[in-house]
Amino acid sequence: MNAGTETVGQTDANAIHDAMVTLGQAARAAMQELATVPAETKNKALREAAKAIRASKEALLAANAKDMAAAEANGTQGAMLDRLMLNDDRVEAMAKGLEDIAALEDPVGSVMAEWDRPNGLRIQRVRVPLGVIGIIYESRPNVTADAGGLCLKSGNAAILRGGSESFHSSRAILDCLHQGLRMANLPTGAIQIVPTTDRAAVGEMLTMPDLIDIIVPRGGKGLIERVQAESRIPVIAHLDGNCHVYIDRAASSDKAADIVFNAKMRRPGICGAAESLLIDRSIAESVLPTIVERLSEAGCEIRGDAATQALDSRIAAASEEDWDTEYLDAIISVKQVDGVDAAVDHINRHGSHHTDSIVTEDEGTAEKFLSRVDSAIVLHNASTQFADGGEFGMGAEIGISTGRLHARGPVGVEQLTTFKYVVRGNGQVRP
Amino acid sequence: MNAGTETVGQTDANAIHDAMVTLGQAARAAMQELATVPAETKNKALREAAKAIRASKEALLAANAKDMAAAEANGTQGAMLDRLMLNDDRVEAMAKGLEDIAALEDPVGSVMAEWDRPNGLRIQRVRVPLGVIGIIYESRPNVTADAGGLCLKSGNAAILRGGSESFHSSRAILDCLHQGLRMANLPTGAIQIVPTTDRAAVGEMLTMPDLIDIIVPRGGKGLIERVQAESRIPVIAHLDGNCHVYIDRAASSDKAADIVFNAKMRRPGICGAAESLLIDRSIAESVLPTIVERLSEAGCEIRGDAATQALDSRIAAASEEDWDTEYLDAIISVKQVDGVDAAVDHINRHGSHHTDSIVTEDEGTAEKFLSRVDSAIVLHNASTQFADGGEFGMGAEIGISTGRLHARGPVGVEQLTTFKYVVRGNGQVRP
Repeated sequence: MNAGTETVGQTDANAIHDAMVTLGQAARAAMQELATVPAETKNKALREAAKAIRASKEALLAANAKDMAAAEANGTQGAMLDRLMLNDDRVEAMAKGLEDIAALEDPVGSVMAEWDRPNGLRIQRVRVPLGVIGIIYESRPNVTADAGGLCLKSGNAAILRGGSESFHSSRAILDCLHQGLRMANLPTGAIQIVPTTDRAAVGEMLTMPDLIDIIVPRGGKGLIERVQAESRIPVIAHLDGNCHVYIDRAASSDKAADIVFNAKMRRPGICGAAESLLIDRSIAESVLPTIVERLSEAGCEIRGDAATQALDSRIAAASEEDWDTEYLDAIISVKQVDGVDAAVDHINRHGSHHTDSIVTEDEGTAEKFLSRVDSAIVLHNASTQFADGGEFGMGAEIGISTGRLHARGPVGVEQLTTFKYVVRGNGQVRP
Repeated sequence: MNAGTETVGQTDANAIHDAMVTLGQAARAAMQELATVPAETKNKALREAAKAIRASKEALLAANAKDMAAAEANGTQGAMLDRLMLNDDRVEAMAKGLEDIAALEDPVGSVMAEWDRPNGLRIQRVRVPLGVIGIIYESRPNVTADAGGLCLKSGNAAILRGGSESFHSSRAILDCLHQGLRMANLPTGAIQIVPTTDRAAVGEMLTMPDLIDIIVPRGGKGLIERVQAESRIPVIAHLDGNCHVYIDRAASSDKAADIVFNAKMRRPGICGAAESLLIDRSIAESVLPTIVERLSEAGCEIRGDAATQALDSRIAAASEEDWDTEYLDAIISVKQVDGVDAAVDHINRHGSHHTDSIVTEDEGTAEKFLSRVDSAIVLHNASTQFADGGEFGMGAEIGISTGRLHARGPVGVEQLTTFKYVVRGNGQVRP
């Protein structure tokens, strides 16, 4: 049950394999217990874990200081370093996040649909946990608390593999989660961390279909691509968010400026941040200057196509690569296009099927954009930064799925369940 | 658009790769057209294809005769040969199947849920097609019509790869589907067949994530395992149906006999057929003789554990392997167990998470079985042969998914869609 507490050396492949199997078996044992546990027991574990996080703030910050020092020594900076950092507010946010998850409705056991057949059979579609979920993520240590909490709430056992750069922070957070589990008499196998930073452990996770049911990767393109290529287990992919705002010729210029500024600069490091601005060529000259002014003043680097660059000396030249880049930083690329059709084409070609927004007062143009852009979330006259389970009213999320199967968009506790059909009869046989 | 009409030789790997890319590109072009086509246009294509199938009956039977002769020459027999066979009834059933699909409600564009947020954003969850679906199946030629029809109805483009043994039958059926598409002015790229029986083509399909969105394998364990191991594309798995009936000590012996007989013998070759009978040890002696008698009279081979074998000289000895075997034939294994807990353990260990039934008059025992058996479909006092989209009232199905993600149980037109979030605002930005 406690396989998450020793550290395995970096070199012994057999030891890593054995450690992963031990983890997987503990997770499966915990999963069977979790599947039939009352909501209140899971909620108690979550609330006790929140208490433990608040009580352990100093220990958490000390563990995080080790990770931060190592990252800075490795030359990490900017948004990447910010993602790794814990402070008082972020520790409190983790605790609050677990309490919020405790307050959510328990999805397990809820009847999604039920109907009767002419032969008297009664059919119900009932939510059940997915099983054992392997979560592979990069630097943000708070994912340890969020993902562990969401999996627990939805009755799943979690095997977490955080980035090596957040190893100490994540282990300290795990200790708090385990305190919560123990207070509720739940097995600590319900939430475990891979006990090594060796990348080979990820390879093991991806090839354990008998022990892990679902893999959820969270991170950059490199991580996701590796997971998708190697995994023998179904993947709920959280790819990069190369999100767009398109300003139509019929846009309100005030709304356009507010939405672009918010979509880029509210938090440039989140996956729902806009990376590219598309604008109808016919209004670029009148609408762009205000936007360029606001972005530049806020320290945002702007990279434009030739026509856009000509408007302002602060605009750098965009390369072809820029249209495919998720900066996760205060940088935006700007392109002038010939109307909504060209915008849709550009987004479907260069976007990541995550979140894209149109600014227009023309309903017909908006509907065209909303129906043709092939993304998990499409918005009209709203910021792409609303791409968030909380903002959707779904509670906390494990991420935004850019895959097409099972879960698309925010992945919350409901999306971490599957279902079974329960059929009740009185002796029916099929003719 | 017409890449499905030439046959590629068996040896040239480059030619196969090129042919598959051509197929994939035609499918993606067709998919974009299909996504916005009105329901009536798709329904017209389906009804015209049904007409073409009826009008082409002689050609279909002649093509099937070629496949049958080759299969018999290869020594194929029993249930496998029956699966391959077309006759008047089965041709009519294919035509009727397409008309039934035309009569279903179009899932595309339907609003699954909608709600307003306090900030005025209106959020809708809207059904959209999955995209391009690759379907890999074995002998049954009617899958060509069913799968092609279901994909078309749900707005997806289909790339079909049938068994080499049904190649001529499937090509003749495809011709009818293309007639339907042409009558509705839809691209024939909407439904294509892999133009070679070379197994390398399957390898190509599984590694084309840019061109194919979802892989649906239908067939035996060997096929599914190969697909799951090799695929770089998400898979909706249709694994084998190692289905169980458990007769509890509180069972009605009449219901038990009727349900077991129906679950095994109504059609022994379908995935919902029962393969193993579990029975509470305490009632085996009183309940089994009638069941053994009925099954034996109907020509069913019975393989039992030692205790069961002792009851009747017609019962052969079951080996450990029997508990894991999907016979797809008139054979059943019988095991005596110590109550519902042992039955649940056996099913979760040896079953295929497909369909399992309990016969009991005790509601508490039934609920325990229904909640603890980890299968897509669990039944109380009803035959496992109800595991069928039509019997569930969902219309035609492409199969029964034993995977946990996205679709579990019958996969019909609704399960062949995904969704997107459409968010409408009036200038909202995130605080």
